[in-house]
Amino acid sequence: MTKPDVLITGSYPEWDMQPMQEAFTVHELAADASATSLPRDVADKITALAMKGHAPIDGAYMDALPNLKMIANFGVGYDAIDVEAADARGIAVTNTPDVLSDDVADLAVAMLIAQARDMMGAEAWVRSGNWGTQGAYPLKQKVSGSRIGIIGLGRIGHEIASRLAAFKCEIGYSSRSRKETPGWQYFDDHVALADWADHVVIALAGGPGTAGLVSKQVIEAIGPRGILVNISRGSTVDEPALLDALESGRLGGAGLDVFENEPKIDPRFLKLKNAVLQPHQASATAETRQDMGALQRENLLSFYAKKPLQTPVNKTGKSYPR
Amino acid sequence: MTKPDVLITGSYPEWDMQPMQEAFTVHELAADASATSLPRDVADKITALAMKGHAPIDGAYMDALPNLKMIANFGVGYDAIDVEAADARGIAVTNTPDVLSDDVADLAVAMLIAQARDMMGAEAWVRSGNWGTQGAYPLKQKVSGSRIGIIGLGRIGHEIASRLAAFKCEIGYSSRSRKETPGWQYFDDHVALADWADHVVIALAGGPGTAGLVSKQVIEAIGPRGILVNISRGSTVDEPALLDALESGRLGGAGLDVFENEPKIDPRFLKLKNAVLQPHQASATAETRQDMGALQRENLLSFYAKKPLQTPVNKTGKSYPR
Repeated sequence: MTKPDVLITGSYPEWDMQPMQEAFTVHELAADASATSLPRDVADKITALAMKGHAPIDGAYMDALPNLKMIANFGVGYDAIDVEAADARGIAVTNTPDVLSDDVADLAVAMLIAQARDMMGAEAWVRSGNWGTQGAYPLKQKVSGSRIGIIGLGRIGHEIASRLAAFKCEIGYSSRSRKETPGWQYFDDHVALADWADHVVIALAGGPGTAGLVSKQVIEAIGPRGILVNISRGSTVDEPALLDALESGRLGGAGLDVFENEPKIDPRFLKLKNAVLQPHQASATAETRQDMGALQRENLLSFYAKKPLQTPVNKTGKSYPR
Repeated sequence: MTKPDVLITGSYPEWDMQPMQEAFTVHELAADASATSLPRDVADKITALAMKGHAPIDGAYMDALPNLKMIANFGVGYDAIDVEAADARGIAVTNTPDVLSDDVADLAVAMLIAQARDMMGAEAWVRSGNWGTQGAYPLKQKVSGSRIGIIGLGRIGHEIASRLAAFKCEIGYSSRSRKETPGWQYFDDHVALADWADHVVIALAGGPGTAGLVSKQVIEAIGPRGILVNISRGSTVDEPALLDALESGRLGGAGLDVFENEPKIDPRFLKLKNAVLQPHQASATAETRQDMGALQRENLLSFYAKKPLQTPVNKTGKSYPR
């Protein structure tokens, strides 16, 4: 039996490559390259794309792979993929939700506390020897018991909220619709949520529907003692407004794992003293990346076996097998 | 009415000094000075000591204040005070429990995640510009769902456990006696707990009864993938064994807020790449320090009003008023 031809983008560790090569004939392409750069005979053979990274996959990319019927994204956020273009071409799209929610929520909570308690500054105080020569580090801000506003109460937002509830925090959220919760307060307006909350965590999906949704007005409603945590996508925030607010102190602090133009982020971030900056590592544990790789492959295997896909995200994918 | 004469040690912010001076005639003494250095006429007037810091208060110190009847400690840990010597002299001792438990638990959880996810290294990766030029940071270790062993399940240990339970962690604990818990697993042996657990958090009281209780054997039972978090006292751990285990990799990592000889800590700590080091700041938020100061004063005011003390720790204090 010949193995199906799968195009893969991005870098995969051995624990993914080995099972991938066992099941498929694997063709590699750099994440930022276009499918038009593939030799014609290879492009014609490709029936599925195993995608990793954030470089856009648009209709032209899909058209360069005339037999493409499936895009399996590594990651929960599939904003890089033009899903409408995929549907128009009868291409199924899948992602890897759920398996990464715990890790993302862990980092969100830790960034909030790290910023409130200035753990990075305190660590430097110890390591420089200043603690021994100059004494105690200045007092910081308490997290437990504060009001937390979650923008976007999907799977990840829910995991963040349930953790912070154990810190005796009051939980509020804004979302397209009211969700079933253990008594968390619903706001139909992001500014009203930010006004009510001490700190805000963004847990939105990316893509054009949420671009710039965390506006200057939302940011300034969080206020000079508040902290904004973002583990979603850089695109959800008005980034120039965020930088202005952090530099001027109109926003107290931030914990950021995602940025516009990452990894080449705006150099103004690097000078901020009131922000924890992480390199989009919220799901970057060995355990979770293995689970994500396994789910990406399960979707591919189901596709070729003509079984229902595990985690489809578009109309074509949800109707598979057709 | 003359105000009672209170000796205070350590540095107090305005929010403490002002109400203290309204209620008492305040005499200041450096935290590391002996009461024998006070002028005789001052020493004779002192009826209470409002103590801050970790310098020892022994029988000789108490004897230098012949009319001392009360020691109000700022902080939950009163291991610096010789409580038996206080009881022998009919001196009541109080501390400031509960009000700081949330902050301490917050920092314990954040140090565990910060170490598992190498947030300090990841932050440096962003700030140095390496993310932009060299790409993704290496994968780290998942915290949610892991087995957490808490050594010492007092008020603070309980707060840490209830937070980590919301991270879907399995909770085990070792303690002098079995406690009422929501199904957390009891171990009567610290090594057995460390062997069972992925990560261990020390939440013991300080003092001679717990000195070196976290032995080389306990540390090595945590193992090369495990993390040890300490928010109790440096004295609870065999520190040379801890340093050896961290340097050799026999212990995976640590999150440490307390040390022997702090703030002049062993310089071997400063070179560790596998430890988060904090300057004994677990209770160091403005909110909590205000609550601690208020509770210290309430104990003093109750003492002078001959009312029951809020939070006595020794026999004399518990029997007050006599």
